[in-house]
Amino acid sequence: MTRPGSGPALFTDLYQLTMMQGYFVSGLHTQDATFDLSFRRAPYRGGYAVWAGLEPALEYLSGLRFGEADLAYLDSLGLFRPDFLAALRGWRFTACVTAFPEGSVVFPHEPLLTVRGPLWEAQLVETALLNVLNFQTLIATKAARCLSAAQAGAHGGEIVEFGARRAQGPDGALGAARAAVIGGATGTSNVEAAARYGLRVTGTHAHAWVESFPDELSAFRAYAALYPDATTLLLDTFDTLRSGLPNALTVARELRAAGHELRGVRLDSGDLAYLSAQVRSALDGAGFPDVRIVASNDLSEFVIQSVIQGGGRVDVYGIGTQLATGGGDGGGALGGVYKLVALGGQDRMKLTGDLAKTSVPGTKRVWRARDGAGRYALDVVTGQDEAAPQPGGRVSDPANPLRSRRIPDGLGWADPRVTVMDAGQRTRPAESLPELQARAHAELAALPDGTRRLLNPHAYHVSLSAALQGRRDALIGALRDRHGL
Amino acid sequence: MTRPGSGPALFTDLYQLTMMQGYFVSGLHTQDATFDLSFRRAPYRGGYAVWAGLEPALEYLSGLRFGEADLAYLDSLGLFRPDFLAALRGWRFTACVTAFPEGSVVFPHEPLLTVRGPLWEAQLVETALLNVLNFQTLIATKAARCLSAAQAGAHGGEIVEFGARRAQGPDGALGAARAAVIGGATGTSNVEAAARYGLRVTGTHAHAWVESFPDELSAFRAYAALYPDATTLLLDTFDTLRSGLPNALTVARELRAAGHELRGVRLDSGDLAYLSAQVRSALDGAGFPDVRIVASNDLSEFVIQSVIQGGGRVDVYGIGTQLATGGGDGGGALGGVYKLVALGGQDRMKLTGDLAKTSVPGTKRVWRARDGAGRYALDVVTGQDEAAPQPGGRVSDPANPLRSRRIPDGLGWADPRVTVMDAGQRTRPAESLPELQARAHAELAALPDGTRRLLNPHAYHVSLSAALQGRRDALIGALRDRHGL
Repeated sequence: MTRPGSGPALFTDLYQLTMMQGYFVSGLHTQDATFDLSFRRAPYRGGYAVWAGLEPALEYLSGLRFGEADLAYLDSLGLFRPDFLAALRGWRFTACVTAFPEGSVVFPHEPLLTVRGPLWEAQLVETALLNVLNFQTLIATKAARCLSAAQAGAHGGEIVEFGARRAQGPDGALGAARAAVIGGATGTSNVEAAARYGLRVTGTHAHAWVESFPDELSAFRAYAALYPDATTLLLDTFDTLRSGLPNALTVARELRAAGHELRGVRLDSGDLAYLSAQVRSALDGAGFPDVRIVASNDLSEFVIQSVIQGGGRVDVYGIGTQLATGGGDGGGALGGVYKLVALGGQDRMKLTGDLAKTSVPGTKRVWRARDGAGRYALDVVTGQDEAAPQPGGRVSDPANPLRSRRIPDGLGWADPRVTVMDAGQRTRPAESLPELQARAHAELAALPDGTRRLLNPHAYHVSLSAALQGRRDALIGALRDRHGL
Repeated sequence: MTRPGSGPALFTDLYQLTMMQGYFVSGLHTQDATFDLSFRRAPYRGGYAVWAGLEPALEYLSGLRFGEADLAYLDSLGLFRPDFLAALRGWRFTACVTAFPEGSVVFPHEPLLTVRGPLWEAQLVETALLNVLNFQTLIATKAARCLSAAQAGAHGGEIVEFGARRAQGPDGALGAARAAVIGGATGTSNVEAAARYGLRVTGTHAHAWVESFPDELSAFRAYAALYPDATTLLLDTFDTLRSGLPNALTVARELRAAGHELRGVRLDSGDLAYLSAQVRSALDGAGFPDVRIVASNDLSEFVIQSVIQGGGRVDVYGIGTQLATGGGDGGGALGGVYKLVALGGQDRMKLTGDLAKTSVPGTKRVWRARDGAGRYALDVVTGQDEAAPQPGGRVSDPANPLRSRRIPDGLGWADPRVTVMDAGQRTRPAESLPELQARAHAELAALPDGTRRLLNPHAYHVSLSAALQGRRDALIGALRDRHGL
């Protein structure tokens, strides 16, 4: 925050504050409220999302306060009463938060994070929670998709995040670097992100470097002399195969003669499948099978897939715009929502003509099943106090209750969500990014294969228990009766 | 920056720092370098962009320094020499910056911002400059497009920014609110953005407010009692026309009886064209012609256009995701680039097979022509010392030199770019956001009509002078000869 004397509490929509005051004046502010955060469609028209942003969300909640500058600003708006502003002084977040652990694989229509506590507290935090969780989940999911594409080839492949210059603001770049690593990136070019989050920082050189020397070979030699064990040469400033490649081979031989090895070469334009195969062949033929080929230039999971299908031999994909902004069809923003589902022990919901957009009322839990091979089979959302689903029990599709199914035998059930904050206090230490990356890796590996398909994936089933579906139907009926609809 | 003892200098790609050290070791670091920032395609497949982000970019350059924590971090990487790190201690940006004033309307292939100064300084700042200028230009352009769509109806219309929850991180939300106002938004729902940038902050209430009361009418009454002169009621929690509208009319009458007026109603789902026309008719018929209709729910310039074409009567469009992230076809990220164009007085460029991606070498200026009616006619990029284009002179398309044209008579020429930083010092005070919004408004009004079309716009002509085209051709030839291509 750059305003002196401010806290993070004004990072919210105005209506959260006007509603807070309204609850305060109406005496509703301390009512026990439950809000669920969920999304309705997986990003990129894919079959899953990688849940990310929880740690920054918990840091926000832990540090939530109104500074004196904030209170003075609110007072200046002419909307807020002195008693309300006085109540905000010293105000802290005291609610409980239950959530999937960061790095989990998650699906549409399930409560990813639940805030339960005084109504005005739970209301205020909507904007900031959605902001950080929507964005980081979007990016972690993109990284997982790109890595999945990169690893589909016979030669494997890794991904690194190169997108700071195309990200949406400085924070956008930093958050994207963090989330990209959770989803599977092995490093970032962003030095501040690396310093802040302890990430591996990586890079090559730019065209400007080559243009700053009398010729390409001089430029390559100067770079290699300075970084003899960490040189990746950019081949396409003038011509990849006719100029960059032979000059890089010259430098590779000179480095080896001096007791070092060229680390890599980078391709940044042209037909990456063709060029990487040609370069691989030339490097191997010259005795440099360990020189790595880095590719960049508007990569996405689909470009990576096509490079591999075209016979490409890329070792490292440096992904910029698409990984920093979560671009692509069905990307750009995750449409996560945060809905009131219970108040004062009573179920709450918003009606709408579109059942897929109707929230699921009540405090709930999520049960996730594994089959005998350890693969995830389906998720069932139940009421908070319901036991694990039983074989033969019927569950229904939250977006279409006419679609129901019976629970098969042989599944093992667990509730993957954990209490991450109790009475406003964090219940567990922050996890490291390597831990989160490892969790995402293990969870992705447990998905049914078709769920990871980039296009037209198998839809992983998230169902509602019969009891919860019944509560929802009853509430819809009661609301329609009460409002004469 | 949240790392103690850090400055903004590590917000860059690693290769800028490794190249900086390389220039330093090679003695090239103080060579006089010129870099141009430009983009190759207008966002959203449109015909123009609104240039934004300059003020934050200048703040970054003015405050650029390496903190002790930054130097310690760089030292820990094992890539940097002590003499280089010592040279970074106390390092400041001392270059000159020329740019279009913020809020200008700009086009592909022209130098939007030029940095001229010591090579290592100009190199370092690439990442951060592109980050802030790419993003804010993207969003300001989106706002201009949305406003243009909103104002196309017989009843006019304004736009406000509602996207904090879907923006890419907290900074993404703050930067988007700022840029949206430059492009024409009249307010934001983001309280922190409003406090920081002096914006009008605006809002209504959420569905949760209605669900927190026994019924919708009680909820509306409670809100109106608290904000009798600033109430906008959300109509669709249960049913817009059958429940929300009659309850809002009841409250509007009660407010009037108490000497106040309901400010507005908000529609957040359903057929916005149909519903807004119905609601307008009902409000007018009940004697409330001044109650404003606010619409939200996944709006974009194209949705706004269709609402108006469908007979909608919306007064205020609250735009979230698309305005906070610059989403849509051809959106998500502006692909701005920053290219070395001169070094030590010599032209520089990168070759490529695609002429549209080949940079234009040399230090340059931009000449913009107005016709007799004050409308912009074309831009011509020339060498730094060339005079204004003369009638009859031939100019050519930067992406295709075979397409050339003659300069017509009757144009008035001016160089719209200004020196915004000289020897690292700012040359002019920061401009206020109202000034920037007014500039954008005036510049957009000066565009040829077809250029503002949302789809398939007229391509505004940016041309190269014959002399500059000749220099580019000569350099391409020389580089090809030198590299045997």
